[in-house]
Amino acid sequence: MDAVDENRLLSRWAALLPRPAAVVGAVHECDAELVPLGDGRLLAIKVDAVVEEIAAGLYRDPETAGRIAVVSALSDLAAVGADAIGVLLAVDLPAETERVQAAVAAGVSDACREAGVGVLGGDTNEAAQLSVTCVAVGTVPADTVHTRVGLRPGDRVYASGPLGLGAALAAARLLDVAGFTEGDYRPPIRLVEGRALRGIASAAMDTSDGLVATVDQLARINDCAIRIDEPAEALLHPKVQRLRQVLELPAFPFLASHHGEFELVFGVPVEAHDRFDGVRRALGWAAVPVGRVETGEGLRLGERPVDGARIRNLLRETHGDLRAYVAALIDMGFA
Amino acid sequence: MDAVDENRLLSRWAALLPRPAAVVGAVHECDAELVPLGDGRLLAIKVDAVVEEIAAGLYRDPETAGRIAVVSALSDLAAVGADAIGVLLAVDLPAETERVQAAVAAGVSDACREAGVGVLGGDTNEAAQLSVTCVAVGTVPADTVHTRVGLRPGDRVYASGPLGLGAALAAARLLDVAGFTEGDYRPPIRLVEGRALRGIASAAMDTSDGLVATVDQLARINDCAIRIDEPAEALLHPKVQRLRQVLELPAFPFLASHHGEFELVFGVPVEAHDRFDGVRRALGWAAVPVGRVETGEGLRLGERPVDGARIRNLLRETHGDLRAYVAALIDMGFA
Repeated sequence: MDAVDENRLLSRWAALLPRPAAVVGAVHECDAELVPLGDGRLLAIKVDAVVEEIAAGLYRDPETAGRIAVVSALSDLAAVGADAIGVLLAVDLPAETERVQAAVAAGVSDACREAGVGVLGGDTNEAAQLSVTCVAVGTVPADTVHTRVGLRPGDRVYASGPLGLGAALAAARLLDVAGFTEGDYRPPIRLVEGRALRGIASAAMDTSDGLVATVDQLARINDCAIRIDEPAEALLHPKVQRLRQVLELPAFPFLASHHGEFELVFGVPVEAHDRFDGVRRALGWAAVPVGRVETGEGLRLGERPVDGARIRNLLRETHGDLRAYVAALIDMGFA
Repeated sequence: MDAVDENRLLSRWAALLPRPAAVVGAVHECDAELVPLGDGRLLAIKVDAVVEEIAAGLYRDPETAGRIAVVSALSDLAAVGADAIGVLLAVDLPAETERVQAAVAAGVSDACREAGVGVLGGDTNEAAQLSVTCVAVGTVPADTVHTRVGLRPGDRVYASGPLGLGAALAAARLLDVAGFTEGDYRPPIRLVEGRALRGIASAAMDTSDGLVATVDQLARINDCAIRIDEPAEALLHPKVQRLRQVLELPAFPFLASHHGEFELVFGVPVEAHDRFDGVRRALGWAAVPVGRVETGEGLRLGERPVDGARIRNLLRETHGDLRAYVAALIDMGFA
């Protein structure tokens, strides 16, 4: 686990802070924090902050920051199959307070409407730089919750939808092309699908850091290998596929970029295939086949091993130089 | 309500955002957000960010930011009498990541140890400026919860402890005196007292913005007047009283400053006096008598009316000039 910089940072927090005995699972093992409520339910709660994306110029419209903060936190509730109770916000507002506040609120409202949840409360500060922190809270039955732990060799791996929206926004920004805008970056919130996977998924995690980081982390946590056996191109969202063709770039970097899209990646054991098919039909849900769980370790793209740790540490190694980062992803030579 | 700038900002958020029907009470009416869990309990949850205090130079040690973020969020749970489940953190870490992280974690751990709670999880970002956001979550029986609503003429008003620690830190910083340090700013966490007030307090609110703002807000929300009938000096913490004497300042500004100390201010109806006395004896709790609820409106210090809205808007009116702010508080002429 500690081959990945981000895991080390989280492990250091965990070592420095008192963790309550009641929490379900260890650090890294769950998208949302889970605590028994004493009546057969678990409280599911998560906090996520949109900060670096604003500083990096990835989100220029405060509406995007508001929307994605909510999507990000609710997506972690979806990953454990929780029913959302609501969200809370902590917003640092810079100058032009009223304009920025209205835009943030529009994005938040948009995501809340889509998810069918409301804002319970929040806190506002004045600051030099906009940031939007969202807390999502909900409950999930303890006996059918899914965490990141539980993948077994033989499980099929799916994504809840087509991938690459996050990478496409980053690429469009970086290369200054008009083919993909902030308004195109509208990852869905998979609360309904997450709930439908109760008792079906062997494990689940969202692609907030992109598919490769997600699958790599699942393989590490579950001491298994994951083989992506679909061509990278087949996993891309149609809008991403169009951008990719215009830019004449390979598909792989759009799955490997650290800026993801909040789809769920989950395992389905053989014995749950029929129930999973039933759920897909009932919801009219076009879940995307990604690959399968195997014995061994690490990540494979078709027959080729992928160095997940290297990809996940790349942004830090390139010192945040996005051009160098993308060049290095392309240089890996995956299609 | 809208005579106070901060109330207007919160009301604007409320107007812009979807509020779930299930939430107990309206905006402004509760320190923590309360939502029924469906089994006789309410979920109590609050998010608080320490941002402006760092930018203003009030907290120079990241340990203070960590400690106060936790105290601040848990204090809002105390104000509704909740049992804490735990806290979550969202931390923006600047350069010198490991040193700052360790200091923040030390402050967080310190407050958690005092409160007997743990850290459920969190999120970290790199940013230009340190900020620490804390989420506190817990539960409270719906039938004995106290909110900010419920004060009635005749109620006695108490504070859970002596006041002025927040103002003392601000004054020591501003006047550059050595008599009061960040280490002296250690407001207690009143979870035990808050729980003990279940079924006793008619209403409660914490002094995160200082006593005057708290009492003023309670009077506005409850359409009543509150008379502080103890001399201002009698309400001060001994450390604050010593600093005040060294600086030869009146006591009132130490109760009116916007930087408070997270004590609870609460009403006790006549019929609950005996039970309240029992609780005080059982806990060995030196609650501080402050005044009483009366018919009418506004805030009175002895026989003199206090313009609560003016005091609460002063920091904004003086454009954050702390010297002008303190001078204006002193100029009001209260002892």
